[in-house]
Amino acid sequence: MSDGAARERRLVLFASDNYAGVHPAVLAAIAAANDGFAPAYGDDDWTLALHERMREVFGDVDVFPVFNGTGGNVTALATVMRPFEAVICADTAHINADECGAPERFSGCKLVDLPAADGKLTPDLVHGALVGIGDQHHVQARVVSITQPTELGTVYTAAETTALAEAAHAAGLLLHVDGARLVNAAVGLGTGLREITADCGVDVLTFGGTKNGLLGGEAVVFFRRDLAERYLFVRKQGMQLASKMRFVSAQLLRLLEGDLWRETAGHANAMAQRLAAAAAGVSGVRVAYPVQANAVFVALPAKVTQRLLDDYRFYTWDEQAGVVRWMCSWQTTLEDVEGFAAALRQAATNE
Amino acid sequence: MSDGAARERRLVLFASDNYAGVHPAVLAAIAAANDGFAPAYGDDDWTLALHERMREVFGDVDVFPVFNGTGGNVTALATVMRPFEAVICADTAHINADECGAPERFSGCKLVDLPAADGKLTPDLVHGALVGIGDQHHVQARVVSITQPTELGTVYTAAETTALAEAAHAAGLLLHVDGARLVNAAVGLGTGLREITADCGVDVLTFGGTKNGLLGGEAVVFFRRDLAERYLFVRKQGMQLASKMRFVSAQLLRLLEGDLWRETAGHANAMAQRLAAAAAGVSGVRVAYPVQANAVFVALPAKVTQRLLDDYRFYTWDEQAGVVRWMCSWQTTLEDVEGFAAALRQAATNE
Amino acid sequence: MSDGAARERRLVLFASDNYAGVHPAVLAAIAAANDGFAPAYGDDDWTLALHERMREVFGDVDVFPVFNGTGGNVTALATVMRPFEAVICADTAHINADECGAPERFSGCKLVDLPAADGKLTPDLVHGALVGIGDQHHVQARVVSITQPTELGTVYTAAETTALAEAAHAAGLLLHVDGARLVNAAVGLGTGLREITADCGVDVLTFGGTKNGLLGGEAVVFFRRDLAERYLFVRKQGMQLASKMRFVSAQLLRLLEGDLWRETAGHANAMAQRLAAAAAGVSGVRVAYPVQANAVFVALPAKVTQRLLDDYRFYTWDEQAGVVRWMCSWQTTLEDVEGFAAALRQAATNE
Amino acid sequence: MSDGAARERRLVLFASDNYAGVHPAVLAAIAAANDGFAPAYGDDDWTLALHERMREVFGDVDVFPVFNGTGGNVTALATVMRPFEAVICADTAHINADECGAPERFSGCKLVDLPAADGKLTPDLVHGALVGIGDQHHVQARVVSITQPTELGTVYTAAETTALAEAAHAAGLLLHVDGARLVNAAVGLGTGLREITADCGVDVLTFGGTKNGLLGGEAVVFFRRDLAERYLFVRKQGMQLASKMRFVSAQLLRLLEGDLWRETAGHANAMAQRLAAAAAGVSGVRVAYPVQANAVFVALPAKVTQRLLDDYRFYTWDEQAGVVRWMCSWQTTLEDVEGFAAALRQAATNE
Repeated sequence: MSDGAARERRLVLFASDNYAGVHPAVLAAIAAANDGFAPAYGDDDWTLALHERMREVFGDVDVFPVFNGTGGNVTALATVMRPFEAVICADTAHINADECGAPERFSGCKLVDLPAADGKLTPDLVHGALVGIGDQHHVQARVVSITQPTELGTVYTAAETTALAEAAHAAGLLLHVDGARLVNAAVGLGTGLREITADCGVDVLTFGGTKNGLLGGEAVVFFRRDLAERYLFVRKQGMQLASKMRFVSAQLLRLLEGDLWRETAGHANAMAQRLAAAAAGVSGVRVAYPVQANAVFVALPAKVTQRLLDDYRFYTWDEQAGVVRWMCSWQTTLEDVEGFAAALRQAATNE
Repeated sequence: MSDGAARERRLVLFASDNYAGVHPAVLAAIAAANDGFAPAYGDDDWTLALHERMREVFGDVDVFPVFNGTGGNVTALATVMRPFEAVICADTAHINADECGAPERFSGCKLVDLPAADGKLTPDLVHGALVGIGDQHHVQARVVSITQPTELGTVYTAAETTALAEAAHAAGLLLHVDGARLVNAAVGLGTGLREITADCGVDVLTFGGTKNGLLGGEAVVFFRRDLAERYLFVRKQGMQLASKMRFVSAQLLRLLEGDLWRETAGHANAMAQRLAAAAAGVSGVRVAYPVQANAVFVALPAKVTQRLLDDYRFYTWDEQAGVVRWMCSWQTTLEDVEGFAAALRQAATNE
Repeated sequence: MSDGAARERRLVLFASDNYAGVHPAVLAAIAAANDGFAPAYGDDDWTLALHERMREVFGDVDVFPVFNGTGGNVTALATVMRPFEAVICADTAHINADECGAPERFSGCKLVDLPAADGKLTPDLVHGALVGIGDQHHVQARVVSITQPTELGTVYTAAETTALAEAAHAAGLLLHVDGARLVNAAVGLGTGLREITADCGVDVLTFGGTKNGLLGGEAVVFFRRDLAERYLFVRKQGMQLASKMRFVSAQLLRLLEGDLWRETAGHANAMAQRLAAAAAGVSGVRVAYPVQANAVFVALPAKVTQRLLDDYRFYTWDEQAGVVRWMCSWQTTLEDVEGFAAALRQAATNE
Repeated sequence: MSDGAARERRLVLFASDNYAGVHPAVLAAIAAANDGFAPAYGDDDWTLALHERMREVFGDVDVFPVFNGTGGNVTALATVMRPFEAVICADTAHINADECGAPERFSGCKLVDLPAADGKLTPDLVHGALVGIGDQHHVQARVVSITQPTELGTVYTAAETTALAEAAHAAGLLLHVDGARLVNAAVGLGTGLREITADCGVDVLTFGGTKNGLLGGEAVVFFRRDLAERYLFVRKQGMQLASKMRFVSAQLLRLLEGDLWRETAGHANAMAQRLAAAAAGVSGVRVAYPVQANAVFVALPAKVTQRLLDDYRFYTWDEQAGVVRWMCSWQTTLEDVEGFAAALRQAATNE
């Protein structure tokens, strides 16, 4: 690798798990699916196999591959809601902060966003948002949506998710999980995928693959199959119906085969732990949130951040608090982490 | 190939060009783009290179990769329209007949769909639809949208497209081209891509790749760059922003490199000509529309259709008229065509 | 009345039944409702009384006052539909031709508009539009919407409405009636309001008052009360919730009290008959559609139309066919009709 | 008045200024406008006169009558925004809290709602909300919307409004004022209407009449006439186009004639002052916000509230803080206030 290329690589290392490439096994699965003609729009063997594998993993579910996370979230929500209904979510939720208003535009629904410590909703927060029920002047709460792990890298325990599902159901609401990195949460909790979704009472899930080594592919998973009846039409209207769907399904299938996701997410989470440990040992640096998945949030002096940004690209999460985000992925190497930790120590020393 | 596999292959041969797989050169380009980390959301070298290549091909354009054709069409239209405005299109247009109302839902706009011989709009048809301009009770026509080639496999000549652009512009409207198979039209006309778009006065184009050997990838191309100013936000709201965009861009780039599209579309079109010629020679079979791209529409006795459907999957276009559609693709072989023609003759003989 | 005022009056006489004023009895009802304080948003005695009176008239219905016809139509449809569903209607339907795309924008739904002789749908037309059911690429037909009387002044008999309801229900669809002038239809048919709605199997009705002497007020009437469950929220989102609703309800109530509507609509229809009879006797003038309510459509030589427009304002319906529309209202006088007929004869003589 | 009627009247006295009736002068203006035929949809003399009077009051504006406040707010915002743009508003804003998500549904836009002391935005709050500008993942702030007076009965001074307009304009944003009770603010500030709108740099205003003695009527006022170009179509799509518009315009015109609004709002505000003064003298009762218009918010012991609700209907604003809202109107009498104050003292004494 040339010096220029090496520097370029460093630059993008910790910015996002979307910056990583395609896992070789996934690429191989794509190539294997490229076997001549196959029916389009989901009527193919790979999509069928994905459905079967998803049922092994999650139980009696209906599964629909989509292109990306925003598409999955928005079409899932729009399927189970009427436009006068509302989603209760954390103010840091991806649907609220990072989707350019796509949920509102496509569904017409309002998001009721709540300040939430560590990015996590609680039954108490949900209860506090249940206002104006039955009042024609108010949107009607219909869905509680959580991100697992949260945008702050924290993870809901199975008990916490169950408590939210119970709170939601008791109020006649549904629980949606934005699981763009669900597998990182499962690894973080040392559990399987069903234990933190179906077993907790989750109603609908956006299951992510792109951030764990896929070229591009997510899936909407309905745990209550009656909710899925209209989904085909909403997916098409939501511009999320892949014509050559076999290639999306083949990727997702591969991620689930032999639990490849444990390897990709396990590695990413381990790298995050390493990075957090290294950062915690640096003077003036404070890990801002518990590191429970593959994200590391730290508070840094502005000058240190500035110096690091000379060589690395990453996002400032909270300018005022000096909090930045470092993401690890299936492709992050131990060498990457150690190099970054050294750069951090260097930048902090100069402080 | 086993007998079962061979039969399965036959079944799906002529149903759609979406049933074909990924061209080997495109798959190789994907693998080549899988080179470690790269910035997400379009800030990568492949997307940059695509932009440059597109400008060589089309002139001074702005280019935005998206996931699929519906996504491209809908976000392109929504960018240049207000919700009280209208699209004038043929009633057979994909946006009108095959997108499950996605244009209306996402843009709020009305489609004014016109009966059109051979699927082609004309300036006269457009003029006839320019009603209620300035009247607050009426939607305001804003865009003329044509499909090139049409859903019936016919092709607009450069002169025809120019005339439509002039009619549109004279009335203060824009011309949009749904070019899901634009390369098939160019090959059919024996011309380049710019000659049938930029040179004719087209304002915005949905450029298709998936039907010509891509795994999945289309692009919205703005010939008037001022129209593109808001597009980034509309694409994101339209759930069409690929995180690992390099893999979409690399596919489109490969299609344009060395004019690979001439090879894929040229082959598909040639196969369609062969098929049409064979069909035309069969008693009782009538080619329904001029075969100018990769689609063959024929009118058949119902019993012949029925017999053919035992072995082949294809779509009935017009049940009453007995018209069916056969699509050829980059992957259709001469052997496929000859086998199908033989089956057709056989089915017709038994009549 | 001064000459200027008389001329001004003539000008607007036959343009629209919306050009008429408020019936004195309705104005008196408004004044009577202005009795100090009363709860807002429908929780008042007049709205309650309207509900009761509507049930006497229509049977076991749920009734919701709204501001105008577009608001009633759009919110009624949006309540019973999902955005991927479609309304089957005549191409001349007000929702299709005269509401600036409000149904599409607010509901996200597609209108499938059918050419219809005399503006009337038939079961055969409906059957022909039932395409793509269950196909994810197509909008899913959900509602048949008819206008009673039609925009062409023709009327559905009870048998015709019943046949449409049966066709709709057999296909799992609902029947909506845009009844902006329902009372004119009832008078035209010599029947009551229930006989042409509830008794025919209509599911939801927009009941009009403004065109029959109200200052402004319509009502959405649900014959299937389960369909009304969400309506309060849709009405509010649809910006159709009147704060001082008592004044809307009092108007509608007055129209129904003592069957005032028979008087207003009866007079308007009678004037239309007179006008049609007079027009039919003029050389070169052809009554274009059966005059069954309060609209008269006639085909005229362009020069005659031009001369008439010097003194009268009215709408040209079909420029090519030379068809114009003359509307009569509760306020049209016999003198108005005779004066207009004389002007018509004069203009035609000069021809 | 019978005892029952007297009690009923008491019940609804202070719940809302929408509970009041129509001012006699306004009712007379409606009757006067009922002068035979007149063109519909705004092409009438009263709407023309309203436009002229509004220009005398506000300067070079474009004015469009609508049915209600939600309709005015939503269509005004939708006219000046694209769906990916955002409105910055206080979390207590009517558009955010009391319109059932109508802004989101109709415009597709996101509301960025900010906690705001006394319901008032400040330039600092606005600056803090200007995040993600130019970032395709984020909605793009486009409008600052304030309510004048606020939903808490507080009033922006001209200087405060000017500062907000300057902050908005400096960031490329517009300033919208929800002026459902603008006249109450003007009276509270002892100023005219232009001084707190046009002169401050407001771009678009929803001007309210219904809460000040109209039967029903508001107007959207554009101070930048270029912004109004598309409004006719948005109003129609927004179901806010009155057919017999003369009756809406005549009401608004009457409110402005001879500054009737100073009388109605002046009286309402004076009654609020009286009520606040009386309440402030009662032990255990605290006036929660400055009384600057016609609303009085007080914190009360729950038991006192409970007792008062036996005889009076009013809204609890904040259950936890024990804050309730009492509204005065043009129709509230001194006797009403004194009776209510006595009831309050009685209820508090029993505490």
